[in-house]
Amino acid sequence: MTRSERTSYSLREIVERFGGEIAGDPDIRVRQVATLENANSDAIAFLANDRYLARLDTTRAGAVIVGKSARAATRLPRILCANPYAYFARVSALFNPEREPRPGVHAAAVVDASAAIAGDAEIGPFAVIGRNVRIGAGSVIGAGCRVGDDARVGSGARLLPNVTVYHDCVIGDRVILHSGVVIGADGFGIAMDEGRWLKVPQIGRVVIGDDVEIGANTTVDRGALDDTVIEEGVKLDNQIQVAHNVRIGAHTAIAAFVGIAGSAKIGRGCRIGGASRIAGHLTIADHVEISTCTLITKSIAQPGTYTGAYPFEPNSEWRKNAAQLRHLHELVERVRALEKKPAQPKRRKS
Amino acid sequence: MTRSERTSYSLREIVERFGGEIAGDPDIRVRQVATLENANSDAIAFLANDRYLARLDTTRAGAVIVGKSARAATRLPRILCANPYAYFARVSALFNPEREPRPGVHAAAVVDASAAIAGDAEIGPFAVIGRNVRIGAGSVIGAGCRVGDDARVGSGARLLPNVTVYHDCVIGDRVILHSGVVIGADGFGIAMDEGRWLKVPQIGRVVIGDDVEIGANTTVDRGALDDTVIEEGVKLDNQIQVAHNVRIGAHTAIAAFVGIAGSAKIGRGCRIGGASRIAGHLTIADHVEISTCTLITKSIAQPGTYTGAYPFEPNSEWRKNAAQLRHLHELVERVRALEKKPAQPKRRKS
Amino acid sequence: MTRSERTSYSLREIVERFGGEIAGDPDIRVRQVATLENANSDAIAFLANDRYLARLDTTRAGAVIVGKSARAATRLPRILCANPYAYFARVSALFNPEREPRPGVHAAAVVDASAAIAGDAEIGPFAVIGRNVRIGAGSVIGAGCRVGDDARVGSGARLLPNVTVYHDCVIGDRVILHSGVVIGADGFGIAMDEGRWLKVPQIGRVVIGDDVEIGANTTVDRGALDDTVIEEGVKLDNQIQVAHNVRIGAHTAIAAFVGIAGSAKIGRGCRIGGASRIAGHLTIADHVEISTCTLITKSIAQPGTYTGAYPFEPNSEWRKNAAQLRHLHELVERVRALEKKPAQPKRRKS
Repeated sequence: MTRSERTSYSLREIVERFGGEIAGDPDIRVRQVATLENANSDAIAFLANDRYLARLDTTRAGAVIVGKSARAATRLPRILCANPYAYFARVSALFNPEREPRPGVHAAAVVDASAAIAGDAEIGPFAVIGRNVRIGAGSVIGAGCRVGDDARVGSGARLLPNVTVYHDCVIGDRVILHSGVVIGADGFGIAMDEGRWLKVPQIGRVVIGDDVEIGANTTVDRGALDDTVIEEGVKLDNQIQVAHNVRIGAHTAIAAFVGIAGSAKIGRGCRIGGASRIAGHLTIADHVEISTCTLITKSIAQPGTYTGAYPFEPNSEWRKNAAQLRHLHELVERVRALEKKPAQPKRRKS
Repeated sequence: MTRSERTSYSLREIVERFGGEIAGDPDIRVRQVATLENANSDAIAFLANDRYLARLDTTRAGAVIVGKSARAATRLPRILCANPYAYFARVSALFNPEREPRPGVHAAAVVDASAAIAGDAEIGPFAVIGRNVRIGAGSVIGAGCRVGDDARVGSGARLLPNVTVYHDCVIGDRVILHSGVVIGADGFGIAMDEGRWLKVPQIGRVVIGDDVEIGANTTVDRGALDDTVIEEGVKLDNQIQVAHNVRIGAHTAIAAFVGIAGSAKIGRGCRIGGASRIAGHLTIADHVEISTCTLITKSIAQPGTYTGAYPFEPNSEWRKNAAQLRHLHELVERVRALEKKPAQPKRRKS
Repeated sequence: MTRSERTSYSLREIVERFGGEIAGDPDIRVRQVATLENANSDAIAFLANDRYLARLDTTRAGAVIVGKSARAATRLPRILCANPYAYFARVSALFNPEREPRPGVHAAAVVDASAAIAGDAEIGPFAVIGRNVRIGAGSVIGAGCRVGDDARVGSGARLLPNVTVYHDCVIGDRVILHSGVVIGADGFGIAMDEGRWLKVPQIGRVVIGDDVEIGANTTVDRGALDDTVIEEGVKLDNQIQVAHNVRIGAHTAIAAFVGIAGSAKIGRGCRIGGASRIAGHLTIADHVEISTCTLITKSIAQPGTYTGAYPFEPNSEWRKNAAQLRHLHELVERVRALEKKPAQPKRRKS
């Protein structure tokens, strides 16, 4: 899986960079990260969840990153830290740096003469860069990307191959857009007029803050009149749909297939499980968690976890229960009728 | 947000084009549309929903489009009309005309010699146009689009960048296909044969009527034997899946993430909420509304609104209720048993 | 719909290839497959479901493929076989062969000098083939496809236009990837660190076995550390999301919009209905069927069919029932209270 000889680091060198405490031999050298199950002796693994503690006994990893409470859980050389998963992320980024941009515009790209491309940016083959586009320092525009007229891409951004950015949109610094992402397509604005739909021009933009990452085939529609806004640090998984005039607050993370309908406002630091739906024109407070497959139909003012998914069962059980669900209201009436029956003789006496 | 100096229009000029009645100064000039909240004095806003009446008091818009019932709701120069949202759509289209095609085939496009491209059509860079393809007058084929052999695109159509149209498909006049749309990929036709799946060739086409708009990353599969058909005026949002041999009736509007399984027939003038699913081989009558997140498992013969979404709750409440849902059938039995208990003494006497 | 003159075959010739038994004239010649409703006299149709038996009376097909039990159901020339739908698939493939590759690299493709492309493979216009890529014999890489560094594509594979394969991924023999598919984008790996998300590098690959077909706009993420694996013969419909480190067992078929969260293991020979969701880190046994729109939140150890979809109703009914669903737990308590009431006088006496 490696494309080049990797540099090795001792635990001591790692701790000098990222902090933490070493238990065991500080001069052990590792050159890659791995899972506890599949690590070799030149790899460092991590334990972020005590559920997997037993794996420490069988791993062949050369070293591990663990929480301070796991200090005595293994004799392996180890780094003790407060947040093993975040620590691991840093170590992995050290071992697996992003590919460097190859500065320059590929001969097979089409770049409008009015575009301003930073000298050290990379524009891949078959990319198309429109009028007045600005691309910042060190950004990589992958093969086959389209960046529409008057759009702006910050510095250090990476557009993987086959990304489409419509005209006028704004992409912040260090933003990552994966293949198939479409930013700024027209929102679903239609007006019924005597049996036919009229298109409502979508003249807002999409504005994406710094350090946002957007997964493959996700779509973010441009605003109808005002802008659609994704604030800094938001992380979107694959195949999400963000409708026109949505605002997503900073550092919110959203899993695959989530749909956010028009003009919904999502708070900061929210976590939204896969395939959930947020109805239009709602407001979701900061730090709200929404479970997988949940439809949110009303604004949420309080942090907390909200859920609304049908529990699965063997089909034969589901059939019986789901059939009754269609009569739940009647069942409530029947219980009410039973409750209204006269009290029992014994109870009367008591 | 504007890319050129805009022409201004007086209310009088607007009403001459689109009808309606002016209250206030007819010579007020506006040059853009905007929301009531963010309009400047050179913009015209609209009020389509009385819920937002109070915004008329605070808007800085130069003029507004309102329903006739709101005649006295503001002193702003205003256009009174029967359908403010549709009226607004027309005014916005006047201020925000589509970019004109730039006739000609880009030097970096690959167009088969047998293709018939209208003289005033625009074929963008890196587009690939197959054998015997026909592209009608004034159509725009964006950068990186693929139009397969024997496909046909009508006049006045717009394929935004990175659209794929497979061989033999038919795209009507004035159709808009947003980036990432895939028209005519193989339907999911597989036959089980002794533990392995055999591919069933998909030899039907996709036929898309006039004035259809299809949102980013939506997929419409070709028919297995007969065609998949989307009738005129249908509006599809982003990331919709239309399976093989579906037919969608004219002027139906469908929101994001809706999945329509094979051979389902959707009527005319339907409205289908986001993330709903229509099972295969069903028939949905004309003018049916389906709510968000609803799974339709049986044909619907009557117009009306149909719904089937689990209501969301705080997770702790949901846990308690969802657990009981798995015992609903038993609960019904328990209520039945209670109902069968002998009648109360008092009731017997009465 | 046909792009060339088709060869005709007699029933006798068909049976010589594929087995089965002829009833009626074995010299009848057919040249295309069709549905019973729309067949002409030069077409052969099929009946795989007794529900459609009556269509045998009205079809204009020249011949039909039926099960042995339908031997006497028609006087049309017919082929009797054990599995009419699989038989039909083979006949259709005979009449509708895949387009032959046009060997060679298009002049407008960009292929790295280190890539190894089989001599009879086809590389379409605007394709980009990275360093050390290997493309096997007879494979077709469509227009605008991107195959990243060190990726491998087997023999006889077909990448339709605008497919993206990230670096290091492995695509088996005879794999079909439809337009818009993205293989190997980064999984959704993020670590919370003092209010900000850190990206966790995704260094695993995607490994796709032989004879897999993947529908338009489906995404399969690369593994975080180990690989994401799709075993041989798996069939994925459009717009599916396969998260990092998922494993899908051989010959499993999955319908559109299914989402499989990270590290879930799906067994062999499973069938998963559209828009279902599999939560992360679960194990699903072989030969499990999951119904449409079902959220699987726990591992499934036994084959069988599992379901969890809310039944739809007219909206007015749904409103009443869904409102009560939020009080189901209380209803159970009320029934419990009724059950605890003292027994009826009559019952006491009995």
